[in-house]
Amino acid sequence: MVVDSSTVRQLLDAAREQGRTALPAAAARQLCEAYGIPTPGEGLATNPDEAARIAGELGFPVVMKIESPDILHKSDAGGVVTGVESAEQAREVYAQIVESAHNYNPEARIDGVQVQQQVGGGTEVIVGAVTDPSFGKLVAFGLGGVLVELMRDVTFRLAPVSADDARGMLDNVRGSEILNGVRGQPPADREALARIIQAVGQMVSDHPEISEVDLNPIFAGPDGAVAVDARILLDFEPQPERYRPSQEEILAAMRRIMQPRSVAVIGASPEAGKIGNSVMKNLINGGYQGEIYPIHPRAEAVEGRKAYPSVLDIDGPVDVAVFCIPAPLVPRVLEEVGQKQIPGAVLIPSGFAETGEQALQDEAVAVARKHNIRLMGPNIYGFYYTHQNLCATFCTPYDERGSVALSSQSGGVGMAIIGFSRTNRMGVSAIVGLGNKADIDEDDLLTFFEQDDNTQVVAMHVEDLKDGRSFAEVASRVTKRKPVVVLKAGRTSMGARAARSHTGALAGNDKIYDDVLRQSGVIRARSLNEMLEFARGLQILPTPKGENVLILTGAGGSGVLLSDACVDNGLTLMDMPEDLDAAFREYIPPFGASGNPVDITGGEPPSTYRNTIRLALEDNRIHSLILGYWHTIITPPMVFAELLSEEIERARSKGIDKPVVASLVGDVEVEEAARHLMSHNILGYPYEAEKPVAVLGAKYRWARQAGLI
Amino acid sequence: MVVDSSTVRQLLDAAREQGRTALPAAAARQLCEAYGIPTPGEGLATNPDEAARIAGELGFPVVMKIESPDILHKSDAGGVVTGVESAEQAREVYAQIVESAHNYNPEARIDGVQVQQQVGGGTEVIVGAVTDPSFGKLVAFGLGGVLVELMRDVTFRLAPVSADDARGMLDNVRGSEILNGVRGQPPADREALARIIQAVGQMVSDHPEISEVDLNPIFAGPDGAVAVDARILLDFEPQPERYRPSQEEILAAMRRIMQPRSVAVIGASPEAGKIGNSVMKNLINGGYQGEIYPIHPRAEAVEGRKAYPSVLDIDGPVDVAVFCIPAPLVPRVLEEVGQKQIPGAVLIPSGFAETGEQALQDEAVAVARKHNIRLMGPNIYGFYYTHQNLCATFCTPYDERGSVALSSQSGGVGMAIIGFSRTNRMGVSAIVGLGNKADIDEDDLLTFFEQDDNTQVVAMHVEDLKDGRSFAEVASRVTKRKPVVVLKAGRTSMGARAARSHTGALAGNDKIYDDVLRQSGVIRARSLNEMLEFARGLQILPTPKGENVLILTGAGGSGVLLSDACVDNGLTLMDMPEDLDAAFREYIPPFGASGNPVDITGGEPPSTYRNTIRLALEDNRIHSLILGYWHTIITPPMVFAELLSEEIERARSKGIDKPVVASLVGDVEVEEAARHLMSHNILGYPYEAEKPVAVLGAKYRWARQAGLI
Repeated sequence: MVVDSSTVRQLLDAAREQGRTALPAAAARQLCEAYGIPTPGEGLATNPDEAARIAGELGFPVVMKIESPDILHKSDAGGVVTGVESAEQAREVYAQIVESAHNYNPEARIDGVQVQQQVGGGTEVIVGAVTDPSFGKLVAFGLGGVLVELMRDVTFRLAPVSADDARGMLDNVRGSEILNGVRGQPPADREALARIIQAVGQMVSDHPEISEVDLNPIFAGPDGAVAVDARILLDFEPQPERYRPSQEEILAAMRRIMQPRSVAVIGASPEAGKIGNSVMKNLINGGYQGEIYPIHPRAEAVEGRKAYPSVLDIDGPVDVAVFCIPAPLVPRVLEEVGQKQIPGAVLIPSGFAETGEQALQDEAVAVARKHNIRLMGPNIYGFYYTHQNLCATFCTPYDERGSVALSSQSGGVGMAIIGFSRTNRMGVSAIVGLGNKADIDEDDLLTFFEQDDNTQVVAMHVEDLKDGRSFAEVASRVTKRKPVVVLKAGRTSMGARAARSHTGALAGNDKIYDDVLRQSGVIRARSLNEMLEFARGLQILPTPKGENVLILTGAGGSGVLLSDACVDNGLTLMDMPEDLDAAFREYIPPFGASGNPVDITGGEPPSTYRNTIRLALEDNRIHSLILGYWHTIITPPMVFAELLSEEIERARSKGIDKPVVASLVGDVEVEEAARHLMSHNILGYPYEAEKPVAVLGAKYRWARQAGLI
Repeated sequence: MVVDSSTVRQLLDAAREQGRTALPAAAARQLCEAYGIPTPGEGLATNPDEAARIAGELGFPVVMKIESPDILHKSDAGGVVTGVESAEQAREVYAQIVESAHNYNPEARIDGVQVQQQVGGGTEVIVGAVTDPSFGKLVAFGLGGVLVELMRDVTFRLAPVSADDARGMLDNVRGSEILNGVRGQPPADREALARIIQAVGQMVSDHPEISEVDLNPIFAGPDGAVAVDARILLDFEPQPERYRPSQEEILAAMRRIMQPRSVAVIGASPEAGKIGNSVMKNLINGGYQGEIYPIHPRAEAVEGRKAYPSVLDIDGPVDVAVFCIPAPLVPRVLEEVGQKQIPGAVLIPSGFAETGEQALQDEAVAVARKHNIRLMGPNIYGFYYTHQNLCATFCTPYDERGSVALSSQSGGVGMAIIGFSRTNRMGVSAIVGLGNKADIDEDDLLTFFEQDDNTQVVAMHVEDLKDGRSFAEVASRVTKRKPVVVLKAGRTSMGARAARSHTGALAGNDKIYDDVLRQSGVIRARSLNEMLEFARGLQILPTPKGENVLILTGAGGSGVLLSDACVDNGLTLMDMPEDLDAAFREYIPPFGASGNPVDITGGEPPSTYRNTIRLALEDNRIHSLILGYWHTIITPPMVFAELLSEEIERARSKGIDKPVVASLVGDVEVEEAARHLMSHNILGYPYEAEKPVAVLGAKYRWARQAGLI
């Protein structure tokens, strides 16, 4: 894009000098033109003949408007006439406008009459930009017109946007079909619109002082698009610079924190029930093999480990210090941690920003910055890293190893993670409390988990993103390799209000979060349970090799519910090839339903399940399999569970590994069957139809955005 | 509404005689006028001066159209001109149109030129009517214009509609705000629109042969609305009459079936594993106290009960016959059941319409009609009625008494109901399989449950409603007294396809189901689990006395998730009165969040929970309470569960009974706490935030439509 930078600089400098918070209309149009955004042609006429000439050059119809520094409300002054159709009319209108303006305000200086090309027809759209406290500059696109305004049908992207992203935005509004031309209207020039979107993204990225852009309306015809009105708001107060170490620095510190060779426990206590005692016990009983240094002002030893009055008294290097002391003492001890060059501090104590003690928190952060210490928390339960048997927390220990890492901003959600994991024997690689996020936040964690081979899936509970832009950047990279699930709390306006009172954080507009998270390839969970189920399921399911999903069911009713769920989750029920249909028919009763779902009917013996499951696993046109098991006496739940796990084992041994999920309906025995399946790494859910499909749908959403299918 | 009935009759009779499937345009306009629906004025001109005169009377601008029986595509013939602005122009256009038409087809008879008032401006809307195979006549309302057409923003109601319903429809489209006038447009005349909606509903109800109405567009200005185009489709083939006994007859039969004094088991068998043996055992072991008559061709006795060769050999009366014989034998035995005057037959066997044996099913229905027998099934598991210890099923017995009645069209879903109920100890009054619904369907069940004092909540899994209109009528009545939950399977197009292949039933358009179910006061469940949770929860929760919901939480993070869920479920977080806020502050730490949610913070002892819960229960400005418990050592899960149930017990003893639901986050001990709460009739869910709020939301939806709040 060729930008007329000197014009832009002049316009913005002039506005800054004049103390403006918005560009004047003419300047806004000039700025648009400088970025290659077409605006209606115009010219200033100072007499009737000139008006006729300019209008003739622009082409009729034109709009004519009084130009006077003394007349603000031009319409009230009779100073605006639209639909001027001829040279003759232009002359008449010139005289009429000047006379009206003079009558309206005899004192007004009249500079002439603006003659502007009258644009209309085509499709009405809106392109704009906003500055979000978390995400920074965002470009917006929406369909114009009153109905869509009512329906707030707008989509956002981080600025700047690529040409592909700009084109993608055109399809990301509900009524996007209108751009293709409907009801006899010609299609809109999509490339012209994409260029305008890109230009706006470039404009706000080049010039941070442009805080808001509103091109509304833009008329998009079959050949080009014109921005009729441009409003450009300015904010010359620079945003405070965000603290952001380099990715290498983040990674170096996070590695030592998450996989430490040695841990100091500040405030280690011999007294049962104290946090400093629980942390010691969890470290020791959890089986952590690195050095553990209890720090206690007087004790010789704590829980059998030699104690030190200060970290400065420790001989060897220390990777992380876990704080279990009252909040007011934190800054002073943090100084010692800094002197000892410990790269990470886990601040368990509460009593900081969340209780109004912002100054104390700021003080701790300042000390940390000075010494290059990364802070986790404060106001957290600590963290777990199972692959090192590390329970750096006062909560109950947890050691079931797996490949999903979870984090939570809230301690309550953290406890739900631990409880759900334990009861479902869900393997995890890490569970991390982020609390007030005075320093370490989700993008630091993502940077670590990205390269952590023990972690294949990340699931995060988020109330606010302090730096949404960094998160989006890191997430966009990570999600190409590993699924990232986010439960964004404070979604709704009421919820957002609660988020403010809880963390003092300004919760973002949910539509912005939604669009940016999707743009970053993040899978959004809609409930706490969904986040937990996605965390459990995504690490178990292999990546599908294609879109073809088959439902195989013993209960026609389950087939219907599972089909509904497929549609809700954007899954494609494969069209059944004739030969495959015939192959299934070999095994099922003549009245079983052919096509997809394959309904083997309810009275069938285990062999029918086995044969059809084997067929579905071995036919490589089927990419994923959804099973709808129905409890019968002929094929009891455990018989089904065992044959299914055998068949999957058999297929895996032949190198076939496709996603399989199962809905189990029946009496209570289906619970044991589901547990059997889960213990064999097969997702089976009792009394549920929609949940297994939702988990499969999440895997597909991830695989698609990662470009794997 | 004064309808010009003789005109309408004439128009329809003429169309019938002419074998038309659509009314001619002029007739359609006349029919609209006969129902008081304004259409643009018009007149037929046979010369230029007449055209000018008519146009002058109608008011300019006008549209002029060639009138010729030989020209179907008027535009192609140059026979349509819009925007005629003056008498002079009207004369010119007349000549021009006639000439064009003549050139187009020199043979055409030309009757003159139609001059029609040109209507425009105002808000564009659509009113129509359709004939649905299940629901019959439905009225539709939508906003017009291309965008809304793209978004299919339309709402349906059963015809005819009341004035209130018609007004309600105006608010039931997403962009309804536009009717109030936006962007300087005047508001639309809502009463005029409501009158048109009502008139269309009346029209199709008065004349079943009107199969479809499409008034599109209608322009609604500030004073009135005009239907510019009217398309009216006709179908003179009468719909086959539906079999529909009177409510009294239904009730009399259903009472004997559901609460029988005696049961005959057709095909009772001494052989374990046979269905006829399982049914006998379930009846006996379930503790049924009525007479049990096994029917067996030769046996003396089955399971210790005297057997009979035929029901005709039984001396006393029999209320219901449970069939456990192969499908082909059913019609013959049904004859004997008829002769014995048994009012109900439960047809467990499969092998009817679902396997393609429609003729056999029709034969059974014909026998039943002849003898006035009501049929349940075929192709079902049977049914349970716990308050009579009645397990008329081959499935496992179930006897946990409660006040929710469930039904399922699918056996698989029925088994999920039984499994879920057993594992959660959910009390039920009845579980009924409906299967092929050859006769008894959901409205028969509703008619029974309506007056059954053992049933307070009804939950139904439905794939199709054979007679949606009857269901809506009965449901509208029942939902005023008892919540009715429906899981409508086959919601989506893929799902609907599966429904067809499963039951041969034509699944309805989901938008129609959605609107009609809402209109009938039905609570729609979106998943199998949601149906089951609603069934469990609605019978436990008392009816709220008002909209004020308070969230009380120990975890700020839970508060945020719960607030989100409140918004998603249409619940109102009460604005906290100052005195109440102060009262809560007495008990919570100074840094706890005031307002709503009340965040008591995580480190509090049981007394803080107890005091704040008591305050919330006793203050009658709070109508419902959502608790967000967070597991801590200071207030462990069971301590919380016990104090909560004590406080609720205490409040109940003082006559205070408000809905309370609880989200429990923590380690696995919260599961035991949740079970404790459930066993004390308090809805508590482990590792969930959104589910308890969804159940409370369902109770509110019911209470609102029933007019209770």
